[in-house]
Amino acid sequence: MDLRASEIAFQILPMNIGLDMMGGDFAPLEAVKGVAQYLFDTNTQSRLTLIGDEKQIKYLLAESDQISIIHSDQVIDMHESPTKALKEKPQSSISLGFQSLAAGKIDAFISAGNTGAMLVGALFSIKAIEGVLRPTISSVIPKENGKTGLILDVGLNADCKPEQLNQFAVMGSVYSQQILGIGNPRVALLNVGEEEGKGNLLAQATYPLLKENTHINFIGNIEGRDVLLDVADVIVCDGFTGNVILKLAESLHGISERQNLAHEYFDRFNFENYGGTPVLGVAKPIIIGHGISHAKAFKNMIILAQKMIETDVMTKLKKELEP
Amino acid sequence: MDLRASEIAFQILPMNIGLDMMGGDFAPLEAVKGVAQYLFDTNTQSRLTLIGDEKQIKYLLAESDQISIIHSDQVIDMHESPTKALKEKPQSSISLGFQSLAAGKIDAFISAGNTGAMLVGALFSIKAIEGVLRPTISSVIPKENGKTGLILDVGLNADCKPEQLNQFAVMGSVYSQQILGIGNPRVALLNVGEEEGKGNLLAQATYPLLKENTHINFIGNIEGRDVLLDVADVIVCDGFTGNVILKLAESLHGISERQNLAHEYFDRFNFENYGGTPVLGVAKPIIIGHGISHAKAFKNMIILAQKMIETDVMTKLKKELEP
Repeated sequence: MDLRASEIAFQILPMNIGLDMMGGDFAPLEAVKGVAQYLFDTNTQSRLTLIGDEKQIKYLLAESDQISIIHSDQVIDMHESPTKALKEKPQSSISLGFQSLAAGKIDAFISAGNTGAMLVGALFSIKAIEGVLRPTISSVIPKENGKTGLILDVGLNADCKPEQLNQFAVMGSVYSQQILGIGNPRVALLNVGEEEGKGNLLAQATYPLLKENTHINFIGNIEGRDVLLDVADVIVCDGFTGNVILKLAESLHGISERQNLAHEYFDRFNFENYGGTPVLGVAKPIIIGHGISHAKAFKNMIILAQKMIETDVMTKLKKELEP
Repeated sequence: MDLRASEIAFQILPMNIGLDMMGGDFAPLEAVKGVAQYLFDTNTQSRLTLIGDEKQIKYLLAESDQISIIHSDQVIDMHESPTKALKEKPQSSISLGFQSLAAGKIDAFISAGNTGAMLVGALFSIKAIEGVLRPTISSVIPKENGKTGLILDVGLNADCKPEQLNQFAVMGSVYSQQILGIGNPRVALLNVGEEEGKGNLLAQATYPLLKENTHINFIGNIEGRDVLLDVADVIVCDGFTGNVILKLAESLHGISERQNLAHEYFDRFNFENYGGTPVLGVAKPIIIGHGISHAKAFKNMIILAQKMIETDVMTKLKKELEP
């Protein structure tokens, strides 16, 4: 790589997206292909910092002024204990990614590696936005009519408090405005009935908070049957329920493929279309990909990171969450 | 109706299934059609007790020795408060149904009317089986490979304790053996990860109870992606999560219809194929139908009631739940 050229590029281009090249079941090949597709398909000026085995990356990827490499000779495997692995492998691609993000060397960090390590890293390497009780992860939900909604939390917080769901509502609302381009998003509480007062203790206690929250456009409760319909734009729930729903929805893509149902709607349950899951409520953009991410997912995660930086969604989140 | 003939029939036939003719959005016509289909399609000797407006029923339905009518001139509407309605309308079809069931005049009670009133009636008119902490409602889940599983609780218990989930596992296991014909059913805990120790506080505390439960064949945690696959026969979860999943799964039928996807698998999400939801853990068979039940659903609910009486599933449940 021409170091001088890349240094000049670094000074001109403010946006620098960090990507873990060793994360995911098909690393580094699919990550490399995703980077190539991103550079080829999008007419972008973003700079990419690729974190991983330098030799392998250089062997697979043509040189480019937009790219720099941080060499890493350790990998956190998919089934390692997150906290232990982050401590014992400071030179792993995930550890180096968080170090670079914390130090301001990159503006966003993406990995399809060990999800637990990504979550622990997100929570402990990068500060939460002031006032945020708990960061959250969300997922897009394809609506039957072609639109796209958002559901959160989808697994970072298996047990939630009403005040946390109330913040998830705000974060989901800002994210869907800034990233999904939905104006005045309709926010709903996922519940077992439509009427106020329905639900488990958590939902019952959350409803009045959402109702009084002036930062969101709360439309009330929705039920399981409304999740795939265009009833709400942002669906708020605890991370246990959200995780089960997300994984059930994702399974529809595989089922439709195996059943030879070549149908546009079920194709949209292919998570690769959306890239990964951003962690909301932390100070910097962090995107977590599926272990089975292919090139398309990596490309889309880079595009998502770019959008999160461009729209400055983190600052907008902070503003809305200020007491 | 020839009273003598019906009295003789009553003495010969031990099984008497009570049906609320005024429950559901298309009452009493669809209930009547369901009864007619049941009598015509199945070569059965069961006796049916139809509870509702005698004039309307007699006008719509041909006389039969298998049928008797209990006249009711009150109806609990779909949106009435359950407890209040049951108190203020003792002559309603649902109230009379529970009175008949409690008095032993009928052996099972079916209604597609006010779900809340059916649940309150089930819990307070009919005793719970000794030792049962909380009755539960379950739903069948169509598996991609053509098999059928069971999920419970699907909404009777929005907040659950680990000991309750442990009992749901036993009840689901007995029910799926006796009614669905599954030998040694695989019981799984719905969770956000496969490993023991994963999950919210409820799932974490439930896992060891299921693991030690010698009355079930516990296979561990399953995730949302496994719900529609043939991974487990009985899926145990709290009623909030189960209700959301059930309604989401049911919505797939409507979506596949609207998207002109005439596909066998998604057709199986049409709840009418299965009839209604039995209340498990109470001493007698009670089946709750959807408000939008048509003839087929009514017919299938009668068949289900018959099967529950024939297999004596309640006594088998009691045996397995004895301390």
